[in-house]
Amino acid sequence: MSTTESRKPATIDAIAKKSLSALGIDLGGTKIRAAIVRQNQMIGEPHQIKTPEGREQILAALYDLIAMFQNEAILGGIGIATAGIVDCTTGEIVGSTGNLPGWSGTKLKEVIESKFLLPVHVENDANAAAYAESRVDALKEKKCVVTVTLGTGIGGGIVIEGKLYHGAAWGAGEIGHIKIAQDNKRMCTCGLFDCWEAFGSGRGLVITAQEMLQNVSADQSPLAEKTESLTTHDIFAAADQDDFIAKKIVQRWHEHIMHGLVCIAHILNPDCYVLTGGLSDFVDFELLKEMVIDRCLPRIADAIDIRKSELAGQAGIIGAAQFALDELLTASQS
Amino acid sequence: MSTTESRKPATIDAIAKKSLSALGIDLGGTKIRAAIVRQNQMIGEPHQIKTPEGREQILAALYDLIAMFQNEAILGGIGIATAGIVDCTTGEIVGSTGNLPGWSGTKLKEVIESKFLLPVHVENDANAAAYAESRVDALKEKKCVVTVTLGTGIGGGIVIEGKLYHGAAWGAGEIGHIKIAQDNKRMCTCGLFDCWEAFGSGRGLVITAQEMLQNVSADQSPLAEKTESLTTHDIFAAADQDDFIAKKIVQRWHEHIMHGLVCIAHILNPDCYVLTGGLSDFVDFELLKEMVIDRCLPRIADAIDIRKSELAGQAGIIGAAQFALDELLTASQS
Repeated sequence: MSTTESRKPATIDAIAKKSLSALGIDLGGTKIRAAIVRQNQMIGEPHQIKTPEGREQILAALYDLIAMFQNEAILGGIGIATAGIVDCTTGEIVGSTGNLPGWSGTKLKEVIESKFLLPVHVENDANAAAYAESRVDALKEKKCVVTVTLGTGIGGGIVIEGKLYHGAAWGAGEIGHIKIAQDNKRMCTCGLFDCWEAFGSGRGLVITAQEMLQNVSADQSPLAEKTESLTTHDIFAAADQDDFIAKKIVQRWHEHIMHGLVCIAHILNPDCYVLTGGLSDFVDFELLKEMVIDRCLPRIADAIDIRKSELAGQAGIIGAAQFALDELLTASQS
Repeated sequence: MSTTESRKPATIDAIAKKSLSALGIDLGGTKIRAAIVRQNQMIGEPHQIKTPEGREQILAALYDLIAMFQNEAILGGIGIATAGIVDCTTGEIVGSTGNLPGWSGTKLKEVIESKFLLPVHVENDANAAAYAESRVDALKEKKCVVTVTLGTGIGGGIVIEGKLYHGAAWGAGEIGHIKIAQDNKRMCTCGLFDCWEAFGSGRGLVITAQEMLQNVSADQSPLAEKTESLTTHDIFAAADQDDFIAKKIVQRWHEHIMHGLVCIAHILNPDCYVLTGGLSDFVDFELLKEMVIDRCLPRIADAIDIRKSELAGQAGIIGAAQFALDELLTASQS
């Protein structure tokens, strides 16, 4: 665009597009959070409720939430990030999710659209988060951004040249189920053995700790006293207090995270990993990056950056809403 | 296009484009093979020479080969598939390759173009093969085709919606270096530990056999007599003759191949794997597919097809040449 053109006053149409906002909803196993989103940014703090049990109860809660926001703002659309594998064309939950029993099979886009007469985009939560993460200013020029959510499980999303990659059956980015050990060492909650998530998630970390503490006395580490009721918080707190055994456990956890990142690196050759989720607060990024680079082919290692999310848990909300907005804008252009 | 339009006589331009041919060259560690390619098909049998030692000697051999084909046909361009990581924009070998010492750093596109005044495309050999494999009629509609070359090592190429995926630094598809074991079980020729290739390649299979034969007597398996000099051929031949131990070794090799495919599946959610390379002849596709499906999330398992290459080792030649042709046709459209 020439300077002359860019100095023309903006058209009403362009201004209207820029000011379009959508409701972003992040539907998780324990809580539902929602906020208005405009141009990749949340307007105000998200509203949060507890996730009720059962499909009908969840839908009723969503209806209330949307109606509430409709009273507050003019919505261009609604974006919903949900656990489970989602067919984004139909907006149906097509793959099971342990965190939301009975949720699979829900035609979420259809039911919400017919009730509110607004365009709805439904997306897997890790994918929605990855989409938002890849759009922050620092990463816009990256070729391949892989977002890794470290929480109770491990989720992921792959953005290639600005576009979310969904795979052949909406299942791409299920990176928690990369196989990182041989011979059925540890069972994952999905029923498969040796998934990355069975080692690198919060749940995995606790199991690693329990294994490593088997022959450790309470003298050597206070953690040994409460092996059965151990939490990730206990482990990180002990490591923080220079408990030698706890530090070894945390180091081992970093090795497990490294393993998955190394696998992804030799397949996708990404130029950025974004780590998010509750456990990313406890990652030693210097150490992890060193471990990963040390275990990749030089050409692939050189390209890798590993960052912590800047979006502080809001990425699901922002990404879901932004999908809805992008669809609106694309539709208005055609 | 309407029926009326499609029945118009073809323009000279369209006919000329269809009849364009390029020279495809597959430059490997032991041999160089070349043939004329038109519309994804090789014309005649490939010409084959031994790969000479040293960069200058290889270049001289390529010059002779190209000059020979120039006397035989009108070439629209030249495509070269080579071991190593290739920057396809500059056509330079940017990543080392053990099979062609001293080859890294060669500005292959530049030197060949300046000598023959023809457009040249240089591509990593596994990528060139993947490109050709993904274009066979049966796979044209697939969303994500991952080609896996099982030979002395393991190579790979990823084609997403018809386009080869190169990654951030031309390193995508280096799938032989996915990490499939923990704790430095086995060193790979690349210097990293526990790479897929260290287990699933021909070299890996021999090491697996040597490990498994350690406590086996010659009575139990004749393979035990020649552990030191064992070849993949020995192993497959013994398994064919119902040697129980050899069959276990081959089964273990299938598990190792399965492991890498399962990792790729949960990242990319491909709808097809194409297995190629010398060792793909010995893969039990039924068994392998069963193993992979059993270790993937249902949604991802359902999408997976695993096939043997139909191109019988010609994919590198065809893919490289087709890249050159596609570039010519794209350039002529703009």
